[in-house]
Amino acid sequence: MAMDSTDARPRYWLGLDLGGTNIKAGVVDPNGKPLALVNEPTQPELGPEVGLKTLARAADRAVEASGLDWWAIEAIGLGAAGTLDPAAGRIIDASNLRLWNGFALAPRLAERLDRPTFLLNDANAAAFGEYWAGVGRTTQSLVLFTIGTGIGCGIVESGRIIEGRHGLGGECGHMTIQMDGGRLCSCGRTGHLEAYASVSALVARAVEGLEREPESLLGPSRRAGTLTGHEISRCARLGDPLADRLIRETARYLAVGASVVMHTVDPDLVLFGGGMSAAGLEFLEMIRHEIKTLVFPTSWQNTRIEFAGLGGDAGVIGAAGWAMKRIQEA
Amino acid sequence: MAMDSTDARPRYWLGLDLGGTNIKAGVVDPNGKPLALVNEPTQPELGPEVGLKTLARAADRAVEASGLDWWAIEAIGLGAAGTLDPAAGRIIDASNLRLWNGFALAPRLAERLDRPTFLLNDANAAAFGEYWAGVGRTTQSLVLFTIGTGIGCGIVESGRIIEGRHGLGGECGHMTIQMDGGRLCSCGRTGHLEAYASVSALVARAVEGLEREPESLLGPSRRAGTLTGHEISRCARLGDPLADRLIRETARYLAVGASVVMHTVDPDLVLFGGGMSAAGLEFLEMIRHEIKTLVFPTSWQNTRIEFAGLGGDAGVIGAAGWAMKRIQEA
Repeated sequence: MAMDSTDARPRYWLGLDLGGTNIKAGVVDPNGKPLALVNEPTQPELGPEVGLKTLARAADRAVEASGLDWWAIEAIGLGAAGTLDPAAGRIIDASNLRLWNGFALAPRLAERLDRPTFLLNDANAAAFGEYWAGVGRTTQSLVLFTIGTGIGCGIVESGRIIEGRHGLGGECGHMTIQMDGGRLCSCGRTGHLEAYASVSALVARAVEGLEREPESLLGPSRRAGTLTGHEISRCARLGDPLADRLIRETARYLAVGASVVMHTVDPDLVLFGGGMSAAGLEFLEMIRHEIKTLVFPTSWQNTRIEFAGLGGDAGVIGAAGWAMKRIQEA
Repeated sequence: MAMDSTDARPRYWLGLDLGGTNIKAGVVDPNGKPLALVNEPTQPELGPEVGLKTLARAADRAVEASGLDWWAIEAIGLGAAGTLDPAAGRIIDASNLRLWNGFALAPRLAERLDRPTFLLNDANAAAFGEYWAGVGRTTQSLVLFTIGTGIGCGIVESGRIIEGRHGLGGECGHMTIQMDGGRLCSCGRTGHLEAYASVSALVARAVEGLEREPESLLGPSRRAGTLTGHEISRCARLGDPLADRLIRETARYLAVGASVVMHTVDPDLVLFGGGMSAAGLEFLEMIRHEIKTLVFPTSWQNTRIEFAGLGGDAGVIGAAGWAMKRIQEA
C-alpha cells in the first residue's frame, strides 16, 4: 500500500539564518529540536539572485541531512540582519547585505522552494528560539540581548515577537542610555547601549584605557593585534585592574539596558547571549548585582536574568518556530 | 409588550479612574464616547473600605447621569495609579494610596456592583483610551507619555496593553536616559526620564537656573510661589532666555524618551499628554525636531508624533474600553 502523505504526521519546519558571512540552515522538529544544521558562505558581494540560490541550496542540504523528504517540511522561517519589512518579506536596509536592500527575499524564496516563507529579524528570531525551545521555554515574555560586534536584541511578549510597525521592534542596541556626553555609536548617533556594551565597544574602551594605564596586561595583546573580548575577560580573571574595571563597567552598561526593558516591557526573563557569555557566571552575577540598584523591587525580585542557552543555533531554531507559529495562527 | 432586556442592544461600559485626589467615573458607549462623567473626592486617608463605597457611589452617579439603567452596563474598567497585579485585581504599591496597598480592589468592586471588573494602571488606561477612541484610533500600536508631577506612560502594541509580567509594563518614566551623572528621580534612583522631563523636574530645573540667571522673568513668579510649567511656557513665549532654554531642553528630554520606545516597541504613534501640551504646537515641533536627530530614518519618516486628544477623560474612556476588550475576548 502506498504511503499517503496526507496522514497525520509530525510536521517539520525549516529555519534559515542569513548573516553577512554565513547562511545557516536547519530542519527543526515540532518541539524545537534541530535535526541537522548546515552552513553555506553568503558571499554578499554576488548580490541577491546568487544569494537566493545559495539559500535554496542550504535548505536542500539541511533537508537531506535531516533524513527527511521535502514533503515533511511545512514552512520556512528566514532570519536576516538589518531593518526589514516582515509583512512584505523584504530587506529594507541591511548594512552587511547592501546589494540586497529592497529585495523581496521571502516571496522569492517561497516561490523557489514552494513553501510559505516568513522573513524576520535575526535577533528577533534568536529571541523567539530561546522562548520556544531555550531558556525561556516556560516563560510568556523575554528580552534577549546578543552581545557581539553590535548588540542585537529581540523581544517576545505574550508569546509574540514585537516586530514593530517599521521593522524596528527590539532594536534595543540603539536605545539611548547616556543622552549627554555619550559615546559614538556605529549608527552615527551617540549614547546608545551598543556604543558602550558591545564587544567592539569593550575593545575600544580597552584601547582608550591603555592610554592611561599602559602597564596593563592588555598591552601586549594590543600590540600583537589580539585584543579581544575574550582576552579582556581572561586578564580580568588574572586580576588586571584595567581589564577588571572594563568588565565591571560592561556589566553595568548591560544592566542599564536590561533595566530599561524591565521598566518598559517588563518580561519574565532577560537573557544575554553572544560573546560575553564567555566571561562566565561571575559576569552574570555582576550584571544581576547592578540591575538590583536600577529597577523597582518588584521587578528585581521577580525577573530572571540568565545567559542564553541555544548559542549560535538560536536564530535557526527561532526562525523555524516563528514559521510554525505563523502557520498555526493562519 | 414588556421590553426584553436580552434583546440585541448596545452594550455600555463603565470606566473608573482612581487618583490620589479624585475618582472619575463615566459610562462609555460602544464607540468610546462618554455619555456622562462625574467626580468624587478620593479621601485616600480614610482607607480602602471607605474608598470602595466612594467608587460604588461614583459608579452609581455616572450611570444615573448617563440616563441608562445598570442593566445596560456590561462590565467595569478601573484605572489606578501605582504598581498593580492586574490578574488579581490588586494594588501592590501606590504611593498616593498607601493604605490601599495589598487591597483586592477589583474583586471587591465586582462583588459590590455585580459586574466583571478589570483593574489596570491608569497610564495604561489613558493609552488604551487614545488607541480606542482618541488620536490613535486608526493605529495598531502607540505609546503615550503623560507629563505631570511625574511621567506616566502606557504602551499599546497590536491592540493590546503591554501590562508587563509584574505590573511594570510601560513604566517609561523610569527609563534611564542618563546613566552617569543623572538627576535624582522621585523613585530614589538617578537619570530617569521623569527626573528630567516631568513638570516637577522642569520647575526644579528652573529654580536651579534662577541661581545662575536671577534676572530671568521667572524670578518674580518664583518669589510669589507661582512658578509652574505654564508660567515657564509663558515666559519662554515672551522670549525669556532661561525659560526658552528650559522648554527646549524639556523637548529634547522627551524626544530621547520617545526615541527609546521607537527603537524598542516601534509604534505607529507617540503621544504626549498632560500639562506640557499647554506649551502648544511649537513645543510639539521642538520634540519632533529633536527626535529626527535621535532615531533611524525609517522610524522618523513613518512614526507620527502628536499631542494626546482625550485630555483628562482618557483614563475613564480607556478603562471602559479595556473592560470591553476583555469581555469580548473572554
